[in-house]
Amino acid sequence: MAILVVGSVAFDSIETPHGKRAKILGGAATHFSLAASYFTDVRVIAVVGEDFGPEHEAVFAKRGIDTRGIERAKGLSFHWTGAYAGTLAEAQTLGTDLNVFERFEPKIPDAYKDSEYLFLANIDPVLQARVRSEMSRVRMVCGDTMNYWIKDHAANLAKVLRELDVLLINDGEARMLSGETNPVRAAEKVLAMGPKSLVVKHGEYGATAFFGERSFAGGKGGTRPFRAPALPLAEVVDPTGAGDSFAGGFYGYLASQPLLTPAVFRKAMFYGGVMGSFAVERFGTERLQGVTREEIEERFHLFREISHLDFTA
Amino acid sequence: MAILVVGSVAFDSIETPHGKRAKILGGAATHFSLAASYFTDVRVIAVVGEDFGPEHEAVFAKRGIDTRGIERAKGLSFHWTGAYAGTLAEAQTLGTDLNVFERFEPKIPDAYKDSEYLFLANIDPVLQARVRSEMSRVRMVCGDTMNYWIKDHAANLAKVLRELDVLLINDGEARMLSGETNPVRAAEKVLAMGPKSLVVKHGEYGATAFFGERSFAGGKGGTRPFRAPALPLAEVVDPTGAGDSFAGGFYGYLASQPLLTPAVFRKAMFYGGVMGSFAVERFGTERLQGVTREEIEERFHLFREISHLDFTA
Repeated sequence: MAILVVGSVAFDSIETPHGKRAKILGGAATHFSLAASYFTDVRVIAVVGEDFGPEHEAVFAKRGIDTRGIERAKGLSFHWTGAYAGTLAEAQTLGTDLNVFERFEPKIPDAYKDSEYLFLANIDPVLQARVRSEMSRVRMVCGDTMNYWIKDHAANLAKVLRELDVLLINDGEARMLSGETNPVRAAEKVLAMGPKSLVVKHGEYGATAFFGERSFAGGKGGTRPFRAPALPLAEVVDPTGAGDSFAGGFYGYLASQPLLTPAVFRKAMFYGGVMGSFAVERFGTERLQGVTREEIEERFHLFREISHLDFTA
Repeated sequence: MAILVVGSVAFDSIETPHGKRAKILGGAATHFSLAASYFTDVRVIAVVGEDFGPEHEAVFAKRGIDTRGIERAKGLSFHWTGAYAGTLAEAQTLGTDLNVFERFEPKIPDAYKDSEYLFLANIDPVLQARVRSEMSRVRMVCGDTMNYWIKDHAANLAKVLRELDVLLINDGEARMLSGETNPVRAAEKVLAMGPKSLVVKHGEYGATAFFGERSFAGGKGGTRPFRAPALPLAEVVDPTGAGDSFAGGFYGYLASQPLLTPAVFRKAMFYGGVMGSFAVERFGTERLQGVTREEIEERFHLFREISHLDFTA
């Protein structure tokens, strides 16, 4: 089933202990689409500037991603500059040039209207809500957000949260959104805000899914969380986009399955971790452009091996 | 098989968002022994002062722990004062009164000499090495340490590390010991210092075991790590002793098994997490005094449920 993703297609200038790259292709919708494209059809809605050339377009095209919803505007594309040091756990933002992204007005091409899965990447909740309302027949809506919207756009965000099947955020965002430091109580409060399920990402420690009564048809979610590991990696070249790649693997797998069951959700968490682990192995989208389906399955089994009791070495 | 543990038996004065306790029974050897006592016989070597009364002795006795190696000295017992705030991830030490612990000279009772498993809790590496050399016939040696010894007693610690089958430390200690921020490279460096295997504890995110060529008989360890989850808990009353309780569950289970295999090591990691999760539910040793074997098995299955793909809800 096709996923429609709305979010940023951007350029990133990044410095990590492994080197430096200037204006490489990035943005949440980019990382998400590439990761999801290994599982299902993906359609993108974004805005780019005149610096977005055929070589960038080709990155999407090669993965069969539908880019008819990527609008070209006068000016430059969104450009983020950041650096990582130490454990590479957190980026230091050195510059955020919104450029054409500042006036982003998502337009949904007619050819996208039959998309059954919607992913609202981290953009203004007003725009997330608008896209959601225009895609009234979707089967499932999954979304992301960030501290900025949680802190200063709470009322707008609240409307989006009520529409979500799954909210994907990180530990800090869960604490900020709920006002709770305890992760279980934070999850309960967030679920009470609307999302049927919540996935909290822990960076190098994996992710935890929290379920509510409405997580699965027939109310069979129960209240027990599910913890997916992250792969301990000897070399993290560039963490940029790891969370969006997790989301792409997670949602791409969900959209490829006929039914949302607890077992499918669990496997989706693992595929999220798998795609996140590939993403950080090279700068930008480099690794996600070239991974193979065989490598994905191999790594999925590796994730199982490093976390399951009954694996026999 | 009996475990001999050498370490601190102490009193803790603790403040957490859930309340305050003054001079309750604590210490690494105490938490470790209680947790391990649900799996195997435990013998303790420690020193206490005149404030250690029959009511404290009874805590060990009720769990069948051999306390003949707990020496009574003139003066007061080791007394730690600490507080937790926020996410309860880290303790703020407000006072460390070593008291009788300052002149601790471990003496091994004859009745302990046939112990097959040795646990060197976090004490001066000079003492750890001495106990190790006096227990030359042990089958397995497992140990802990902390930043203070890593930083200022590196040469002494190096001697202990060469003798260890398993070193149990936390993320910060692994980084400090190795000088590496990347967890995989840190583990490789630590394993090169001597321990056959390494367990790195991540607090609320669980723990990772790293193996070397000598981890298992026949070299069947390989290089793949194993990640055990921690249970997301709605209420962490007091995190004091969680790491020592993890060590007790982990090593207690290992000592109860005839052979150290990868499968046994994995289960031990889960039992470590289980005992750590009980420990934090109440102040001090309260929860570990009263847990039942049935509750332990139930929680073990819960750990499996929250981390395994093939669990059917």
